[in-house]
Amino acid sequence: MLGFIAGFCTTLFLVPQVIKVIKTRQTRDIALGMYVLMVVGVFFWLLYGISTRALSVIVANSITFILSLIVLIYKLREKPEA
Amino acid sequence: MLGFIAGFCTTLFLVPQVIKVIKTRQTRDIALGMYVLMVVGVFFWLLYGISTRALSVIVANSITFILSLIVLIYKLREKPEA
Repeated sequence: MLGFIAGFCTTLFLVPQVIKVIKTRQTRDIALGMYVLMVVGVFFWLLYGISTRALSVIVANSITFILSLIVLIYKLREKPEA
Repeated sequence: MLGFIAGFCTTLFLVPQVIKVIKTRQTRDIALGMYVLMVVGVFFWLLYGISTRALSVIVANSITFILSLIVLIYKLREKPEA
């Protein structure tokens, strides 16, 4: 039960940030390094989940991978301040 | 080994964001909901780690808890745009 609440929060924590970034297209205060580390880290968790055939690890990290990649792409396309 | 790289990245991914927030004190583009979910989720992972006596879960989530709390505190103290 603790693990379920924990997993729910740490899988969906990126949803508010993805919504905010898509709405405002502003990423100035977001650290590039954070999303690079996250995409790389979550990708390795995904490989780890696949190699150990742990379905919950695969599902959770697939979601986080897609969400963090969206934020990273917006960050990389950031325009200089007007 | 996959798990080690994965764990390393997903434990320390907040470091660039914490440095950026402390340096610039700008949090406008950061989603409040994201850090609320993260602090709550990581706290439950911490409880889960303690209840199952999983030391690596306790250590990793203690670090993430402190780092995400720092960003959350800066976000809550955000000043309106000048």
